[in-house]
Amino acid sequence: MNKLLIVGTVAFDAIETPFGKTDKILGGSAPYIGLSASQFHVKSAIVSIVGGDFPKHYLDDFEANSIDTSAIEIIEGEKTFFWSGRYHSDMNQRDTITTDLNVLAKFSPVVPESFKMANVVVLGNLAPKDQALVISQIKNENALIILDTMNFWMDSAFEELLEVLKSVDVITINEEEARQLTGQPSLVVAAKKIHQLGPKFVVIKKGEHGALLFCNEQVFSAPALPLDSVFDPTGAGDTFAGGFAGFLTKTNDFSFENMKRALIYGSAMASFCVEKFGPERLFKLESSALISRLQAFKNLTQFEL
Amino acid sequence: MNKLLIVGTVAFDAIETPFGKTDKILGGSAPYIGLSASQFHVKSAIVSIVGGDFPKHYLDDFEANSIDTSAIEIIEGEKTFFWSGRYHSDMNQRDTITTDLNVLAKFSPVVPESFKMANVVVLGNLAPKDQALVISQIKNENALIILDTMNFWMDSAFEELLEVLKSVDVITINEEEARQLTGQPSLVVAAKKIHQLGPKFVVIKKGEHGALLFCNEQVFSAPALPLDSVFDPTGAGDTFAGGFAGFLTKTNDFSFENMKRALIYGSAMASFCVEKFGPERLFKLESSALISRLQAFKNLTQFEL
Repeated sequence: MNKLLIVGTVAFDAIETPFGKTDKILGGSAPYIGLSASQFHVKSAIVSIVGGDFPKHYLDDFEANSIDTSAIEIIEGEKTFFWSGRYHSDMNQRDTITTDLNVLAKFSPVVPESFKMANVVVLGNLAPKDQALVISQIKNENALIILDTMNFWMDSAFEELLEVLKSVDVITINEEEARQLTGQPSLVVAAKKIHQLGPKFVVIKKGEHGALLFCNEQVFSAPALPLDSVFDPTGAGDTFAGGFAGFLTKTNDFSFENMKRALIYGSAMASFCVEKFGPERLFKLESSALISRLQAFKNLTQFEL
Repeated sequence: MNKLLIVGTVAFDAIETPFGKTDKILGGSAPYIGLSASQFHVKSAIVSIVGGDFPKHYLDDFEANSIDTSAIEIIEGEKTFFWSGRYHSDMNQRDTITTDLNVLAKFSPVVPESFKMANVVVLGNLAPKDQALVISQIKNENALIILDTMNFWMDSAFEELLEVLKSVDVITINEEEARQLTGQPSLVVAAKKIHQLGPKFVVIKKGEHGALLFCNEQVFSAPALPLDSVFDPTGAGDTFAGGFAGFLTKTNDFSFENMKRALIYGSAMASFCVEKFGPERLFKLESSALISRLQAFKNLTQFEL
């Protein structure tokens, strides 16, 4: 079975939206990526770190979704990474209230032997030096390396970010961050500049406006599904990345045509994520629901001239 | 030959963008709508008003593009409507510097006899009472009435706007204005509310993020073509409306399937508009250029699961 390696945070999130408020629930990039990818019946593993306060039943839930948790390091007596934030009525903006790194400050990713030949590697939003450390442990030279990053690392670790990008096949980045990374207002020109930094494929995430995939002169646009309500946008970008990577792991076909499909699968998975708080909607998602949502994306975009 | 009636402003614009600056050039909604629609070889007419300072050669240019100008009233000794504005580096925001209504304050639209049976009517962004006055003169009860509006009228003539919407088939409106009109942050819910106000079809314009078409439970998304540079966005929305309306006039088929095509044709025309200052790119646009751009929209959006 094809394998997917996921390196990212496992955290507690406390979220407030116009629709409600949660206590500490499961958060971090890796759970969203892993649960989303599990829809594609691939063997995946999460490399991460948590404190002794992290409930064991979450690990059981991951395992039940074919996610190997043996590389999630548990530091007894210490606390799991915690983030809390608040969304406003337009849901496109959020305020971070708390970021407690806790055990994350000690994270030094070690790739398990059984995943060094993974077909696809997803590097969630982490310090570029840790992302580079993961790549250095990968032994499959044909592995597709997908990296997510954010403005924080452009501000605080720009040289390390440029260094790791040289070894990356696909970058996923939001539109404002693509502009910041390149200093280019046009996303087309920004994508060209990013190609020159290393990534052959550039995925620009536009939230409720969908996503763009660039590969040199080729470009593909996936809309977001227009929804009656977005209940909680937390994790939508990671869920997108998980669906994208899960589909690519299953098919092991990294052509532009197949990347287009992966973008649609990722968008469909993200459309589920926002329906409930946190990753709740991703647990036990029926495959019939995914099939019907993929058809909705077809209806939304396909036309005959 | 099928007929398209266009009611809108004919103006002088002075535009400043990061790429340059113009003196007074041809502007207003009607020239963009008319020139864009002329690509579809329909017989159209503009109902508008200008001052004695309006150069006759522009009228000749319109006529050369099969646009009947006999209903453009010329008020000698008075000045044409003038607008000037400045775009910033992100091009999604602009400041209005000057708005001189001039002759526009005297506008009272009179539909020429030969266009009272038009197949399609486009009501550019104007006072709702003037839009209603046009509708009252239309004799073709199967005519498709397309209305554009903006936040200014929601603030200053809300009741008149609600009244005219009852007689409208298609509204084109930008996303922030759709939210303002309905008080709904979700565009899906906003579209449902707008259906209840009258329009069977709701087109939500999202600028560089494309456009959405709603008809009850059906929805279609057209992206904007990602471009290396947007030289001047002035008139892009009107050019979109002109391409949309021109295609619908030519085909005289107001089904959802054909509306989807119209949305793509409108988007393709808008992608030309932004390449040069004002409506310059719309004059003598080769049909081969349009065909190749439609193919670019196909490549951008079509996928096989």
